Amino acid sequence: MTGQPTRKVGLWLIGAFGGVGTTISFGIASLARGLTNSTSLATELPNFADLGFLPFDRIVVGGHDVRRSSLFTEAQALHKNSNVYDAEAIAACEPELKAWSENVRPGLLSGSGAPVAQFADWTTSQTASTPLDIVTRLADDLRAFASRQKIDHLIVLNVSSSEPMPTVGPEHDTWAKLVASLSSPNPPVIPASSLYGLAAAEVGASYVNFTPSLGLDTPALTERAREAGMIYAGKDGKTGETLMKAVLAPMFAHRHWKVMSWVGHNILGNRDGKVLQDPASKAGKLTSKSELIGGILGYEPQTLVSIEHIESMGDWKTAWDHIHFEGFLGTKMSLQFIWQGCDSLLAAPLAIDLVRWTELAYRRGERGCLTHLACYFKSPLNTKEQDFFRQWDMLEAYAARSV
Amino acid sequence: MTGQPTRKVGLWLIGAFGGVGTTISFGIASLARGLTNSTSLATELPNFADLGFLPFDRIVVGGHDVRRSSLFTEAQALHKNSNVYDAEAIAACEPELKAWSENVRPGLLSGSGAPVAQFADWTTSQTASTPLDIVTRLADDLRAFASRQKIDHLIVLNVSSSEPMPTVGPEHDTWAKLVASLSSPNPPVIPASSLYGLAAAEVGASYVNFTPSLGLDTPALTERAREAGMIYAGKDGKTGETLMKAVLAPMFAHRHWKVMSWVGHNILGNRDGKVLQDPASKAGKLTSKSELIGGILGYEPQTLVSIEHIESMGDWKTAWDHIHFEGFLGTKMSLQFIWQGCDSLLAAPLAIDLVRWTELAYRRGERGCLTHLACYFKSPLNTKEQDFFRQWDMLEAYAARSV
Amino acid sequence: MTGQPTRKVGLWLIGAFGGVGTTISFGIASLARGLTNSTSLATELPNFADLGFLPFDRIVVGGHDVRRSSLFTEAQALHKNSNVYDAEAIAACEPELKAWSENVRPGLLSGSGAPVAQFADWTTSQTASTPLDIVTRLADDLRAFASRQKIDHLIVLNVSSSEPMPTVGPEHDTWAKLVASLSSPNPPVIPASSLYGLAAAEVGASYVNFTPSLGLDTPALTERAREAGMIYAGKDGKTGETLMKAVLAPMFAHRHWKVMSWVGHNILGNRDGKVLQDPASKAGKLTSKSELIGGILGYEPQTLVSIEHIESMGDWKTAWDHIHFEGFLGTKMSLQFIWQGCDSLLAAPLAIDLVRWTELAYRRGERGCLTHLACYFKSPLNTKEQDFFRQWDMLEAYAARSV
Amino acid sequence: MTGQPTRKVGLWLIGAFGGVGTTISFGIASLARGLTNSTSLATELPNFADLGFLPFDRIVVGGHDVRRSSLFTEAQALHKNSNVYDAEAIAACEPELKAWSENVRPGLLSGSGAPVAQFADWTTSQTASTPLDIVTRLADDLRAFASRQKIDHLIVLNVSSSEPMPTVGPEHDTWAKLVASLSSPNPPVIPASSLYGLAAAEVGASYVNFTPSLGLDTPALTERAREAGMIYAGKDGKTGETLMKAVLAPMFAHRHWKVMSWVGHNILGNRDGKVLQDPASKAGKLTSKSELIGGILGYEPQTLVSIEHIESMGDWKTAWDHIHFEGFLGTKMSLQFIWQGCDSLLAAPLAIDLVRWTELAYRRGERGCLTHLACYFKSPLNTKEQDFFRQWDMLEAYAARSV
Repeated sequence: MTGQPTRKVGLWLIGAFGGVGTTISFGIASLARGLTNSTSLATELPNFADLGFLPFDRIVVGGHDVRRSSLFTEAQALHKNSNVYDAEAIAACEPELKAWSENVRPGLLSGSGAPVAQFADWTTSQTASTPLDIVTRLADDLRAFASRQKIDHLIVLNVSSSEPMPTVGPEHDTWAKLVASLSSPNPPVIPASSLYGLAAAEVGASYVNFTPSLGLDTPALTERAREAGMIYAGKDGKTGETLMKAVLAPMFAHRHWKVMSWVGHNILGNRDGKVLQDPASKAGKLTSKSELIGGILGYEPQTLVSIEHIESMGDWKTAWDHIHFEGFLGTKMSLQFIWQGCDSLLAAPLAIDLVRWTELAYRRGERGCLTHLACYFKSPLNTKEQDFFRQWDMLEAYAARSV
Repeated sequence: MTGQPTRKVGLWLIGAFGGVGTTISFGIASLARGLTNSTSLATELPNFADLGFLPFDRIVVGGHDVRRSSLFTEAQALHKNSNVYDAEAIAACEPELKAWSENVRPGLLSGSGAPVAQFADWTTSQTASTPLDIVTRLADDLRAFASRQKIDHLIVLNVSSSEPMPTVGPEHDTWAKLVASLSSPNPPVIPASSLYGLAAAEVGASYVNFTPSLGLDTPALTERAREAGMIYAGKDGKTGETLMKAVLAPMFAHRHWKVMSWVGHNILGNRDGKVLQDPASKAGKLTSKSELIGGILGYEPQTLVSIEHIESMGDWKTAWDHIHFEGFLGTKMSLQFIWQGCDSLLAAPLAIDLVRWTELAYRRGERGCLTHLACYFKSPLNTKEQDFFRQWDMLEAYAARSV
Repeated sequence: MTGQPTRKVGLWLIGAFGGVGTTISFGIASLARGLTNSTSLATELPNFADLGFLPFDRIVVGGHDVRRSSLFTEAQALHKNSNVYDAEAIAACEPELKAWSENVRPGLLSGSGAPVAQFADWTTSQTASTPLDIVTRLADDLRAFASRQKIDHLIVLNVSSSEPMPTVGPEHDTWAKLVASLSSPNPPVIPASSLYGLAAAEVGASYVNFTPSLGLDTPALTERAREAGMIYAGKDGKTGETLMKAVLAPMFAHRHWKVMSWVGHNILGNRDGKVLQDPASKAGKLTSKSELIGGILGYEPQTLVSIEHIESMGDWKTAWDHIHFEGFLGTKMSLQFIWQGCDSLLAAPLAIDLVRWTELAYRRGERGCLTHLACYFKSPLNTKEQDFFRQWDMLEAYAARSV
Repeated sequence: MTGQPTRKVGLWLIGAFGGVGTTISFGIASLARGLTNSTSLATELPNFADLGFLPFDRIVVGGHDVRRSSLFTEAQALHKNSNVYDAEAIAACEPELKAWSENVRPGLLSGSGAPVAQFADWTTSQTASTPLDIVTRLADDLRAFASRQKIDHLIVLNVSSSEPMPTVGPEHDTWAKLVASLSSPNPPVIPASSLYGLAAAEVGASYVNFTPSLGLDTPALTERAREAGMIYAGKDGKTGETLMKAVLAPMFAHRHWKVMSWVGHNILGNRDGKVLQDPASKAGKLTSKSELIGGILGYEPQTLVSIEHIESMGDWKTAWDHIHFEGFLGTKMSLQFIWQGCDSLLAAPLAIDLVRWTELAYRRGERGCLTHLACYFKSPLNTKEQDFFRQWDMLEAYAARSV
């Protein structure tokens, strides 16, 4: 291991009070207090034991959100509505959850879509602001947090609701063009996920995009990220049904079975599900969920993916997938799976892992896109690799180089 | 590629008239005649295009069976009862199916278990024979076939019903001890699968064990195989539910989820299913099906596997697996899958692949255990690797070395 | 039993060359020839043995279709593509299938929706025709068939693709108003299913609507049916997933469990599925599929139904339903089912049953709506009863009265 | 309604501290305090509103158990391990749960099977006792409870673990013969479930057998029950998978589909599941679970039922059923369902319903077997009816007569 252990990492959650944000926060507090085990954290696997990952008690949480709430209240609500978390552990972590809630600032509603706007009640003003002014104001929030908390390394992690996919015009070709267009009388709408990314760039923070939203994923924005010498990674955490696709599709490929159709229906009941009822927001998510099958197989079977909001499910998601394939001598066979998982509890440990890998890279002086984290994402940046096990090999190879 | 293409390969099927034997034979004939595509044959994947695999029209089939039948009749019955195969293709392949049926000789009932004995009506006499005499007589069948058909390379492939797992005593420690004990007044029972393997050794044939039966898998028998300079591989083809286990267990391992229990129930209606109703025969199969999960995960969750004969299913198998796992913060989640495949159609292409890999190795002068074929087997010989994707890497690495 | 056995029944299929029409025709021919058993025909249950149902060899088939084809060709195609029917039985029934195909006349494209128009290649001209002229021309087809075949009782059975639900304006309040509006310069579009029904009324035929299309289901059209003294029944055959709903919802009701949500996803690959890709055509179908749950439970849980066309499925349909319910002390539980059936083979025996019940009623001098057939329909006419077992009781009560 | 409302009902639970016993007790307390709604209690359906069922606050609980524990502790454990119950409601019901626990007496280990013996730590002595002496001692427990609590009507409800099915010899032909044989030097073993029933007879209590154990179900014991003028009902509560069978089998019958095979696998993790690991105990349960299909269909398809103990499931049960059926023209189709329910929460409301129906019958002066409760039981006494909806009609008819 190179370098001195980091003294303090600031974790800035976009969407801090959401299910994922709450679970990340409660999870870090529980881990730091030794109230839970390391199950579901890949960074705690024996293979990676020598990497010297950041201890959990070095993390302090802050963030932005468009709903005024508290991590403590949200944790209790999740416990009650979705039958998750241990009641006693919530009580024990009350101090952190309350203190960290104080670090959360009103969020940004830019291109976030109608459903988010509907439940938003706590937003930063956009009156008389250009997009770049807003970035500066967001950056001020980050700086204030870092300075107040004496942060050595700030990581901005986007775990907010999926944004509708915006139109990406030619102004996104280069950073110079984008800056020019933003100063024009009719500047293009830049979605919040990107503005948060630019704010991270401005203060030298790292930026991890756990959502399918745009983030820093255009040539112009990537150019800005590189120029700023920041670390970035993304996008869209690979939690459940899509993970299954990335795991099963290679099997079909290696056995040379011909996948004729792959149908996936997802039902879930949380706020994320509600946002995804909006056709615009759903579109981005569905693209992210379906594109990988063809990438792995080398041809495009008929695919169908749906995500539907079913109130009674709470934070639980059930996915039913039906894979119809042709075997030897034209014989049609099928595989169906039913995945029943709790969304926030699936996402949070991946996010915590990402924070630790990002911190490790930062400490080791690495910058730019963390391509080796592909196995964490549905739409990994900077690589076409979609086979989960090849992605895992990338992570293991990186780890081997890092020791 | 080294060496001249083989002129003629003899494929000797133990259990030639069974569902798998029939599908292999009909499949080879169909492929040779261009009546079907290459779906489900990994040897036809683009990655392996440069290896120069054996063309299908160079294979001639013979075998042993304990039931008197004909490949043509069996193919028609499978078509009628299990809704598989194309009727016109069966008609077109009638010449090969009938000619190859002439090459099948009465089989051996040694340690084959009660259910096999029940439907056996065509067996080689064992009166006044020692096990080694029987081996010689089986070897005569192989030699006669090879000479009559002008075979360059003979491959014995065991696709017969699962045998009960025999007691393996200290006489199996070395070949010398085993030979001695076989000449004793009360020789131990050597199962048919092993005697066929010894016959293969005697004539210099290769031996592939597609079943969980003993075959050449004791120190004494392996010693004999090595000494004979033969190629061997096995055991127990990884066709359906177990393939899924080898694919999914690594996902649980890499995500650091804790598998608490893994339950698998299999129902199927063919002769194989009937044989597996016998507790002794089933035991070997179940061991082969369940041991790999712990091997991949590094700990032993509670596992349960059942195989039940349900007449109405015909050659179709449905497997339901329920995997119960613990995620972050102690949250219990589950994955269930339902696999609906046709057993013989799943097994046959793997077997044909194995014939081609074996022929390739033979032509290249390799001898001994073909460890790189682990991805084809539930209980791969000579390696502990059970992760399907690591096994696949072994195959790709071998292929890369072979070009 | 009253009355003499009918000598000859004409079965006029709207959509004769579709999967359901073909299976009905092939089924009747197979039954008449004794080539298949009576499985799936409720009219062959022991409970109804004394009712004296029409023997199968008294039925002669004709019909309308918008595609030019032949029952024989269609039967062979279904056998090949969807792995159904016995090849030898098809060959044996060739005479009937070919002769009956001669009785099929070009069909009508009125309000049938864009997808049907797309594959239509054989339609009756509508140039310079008012809707009532068209009815007369359709009636001529019926009359010609009845007279040529010496039919005693003609039954028109609609098994064509679902039509988009048309706007039903005030002109549908009474038959007089509707006639008046049809003679106006801008007559409303009357869908084909209704015009066929009016043609049946004109010639005194019975009319059974096996689809969710409008048929005779407006006050004006029902008035016309009553006035004509015809028998009519409908609508939308209850074949698979919806049958399951009508069976399971009463269980939830009687156990006083609270159904929170009921999600149903259907995938299928036949022409019907393609038609249902059209949002307008789908709407009617979905209404028919979802309305019954609330009717049985007495309250409206959240429901979601989808039907999607997945090419590879052929005539097979897979439905996955997820029912989320609250049990004692607020405990959330779930029931999921997976239904795998072949659409045409599910529908045809119901349709044949309906023909026999209709013939029985006709022979007994009954007229008007056959309400006691509710258990056959998703949206039964003339009753609100949706509980399958109460509907069954209605049928048994009718049968008891009939003996 | 006839008669005055009962002042006080004593509910004597055999197996009081088990999951079902605990849930019944906690459920009654919660209902009496208005802490939960009436979901899953059929006695609270609008159809039965006029019957004047016993209010929940008139019930006082006592019982026997072979494990020393407390309803309060057990309720907390179920909450923690199986994620059921509301924590605040448990706290609110602490007084009843603790007071009722005081009414529980050490239980009987007679013919209860090895697994029950293993966890038993609190049993009534059997030294130097004849079976009839034991009955007297159990009856003393009942009398003491009834007198101490001023009970108007005592109901003994067996919710203990399944006993192995005992040998029922000729001594069970008449009560006289049985009494004689019990006084012989080598008396037959009478299982605890029967001895509790005899104790109920002795004190004039009612006896409801919610388990598959023998109870009063031999000619001799039934004779004794009749003679005692007691009310009795049973046996084996129809909670989940078997309920589904009783609901679905009539659908297959009415549609005249031919069920070829019906496979059901159940996994569960509670003490009940552990007891059922014992082959003897399991046998009775499996008979009870499988016999009803043939009864409804009128023929015997191949059936297979398994119950397996999977630790991680806690009190939750998952059942997977695969029903393979033949439709029209020999077409094979399938229905699969996955039932995920919490055993104790499924059983308890049925048991509470049974208490109320029993109390109603008692108050109305009825005696003997309550045949109209068949819809509550897997193996209903005194009737062969297994169709859930016909059973339901029996209950509704009884209710109609009762108003």
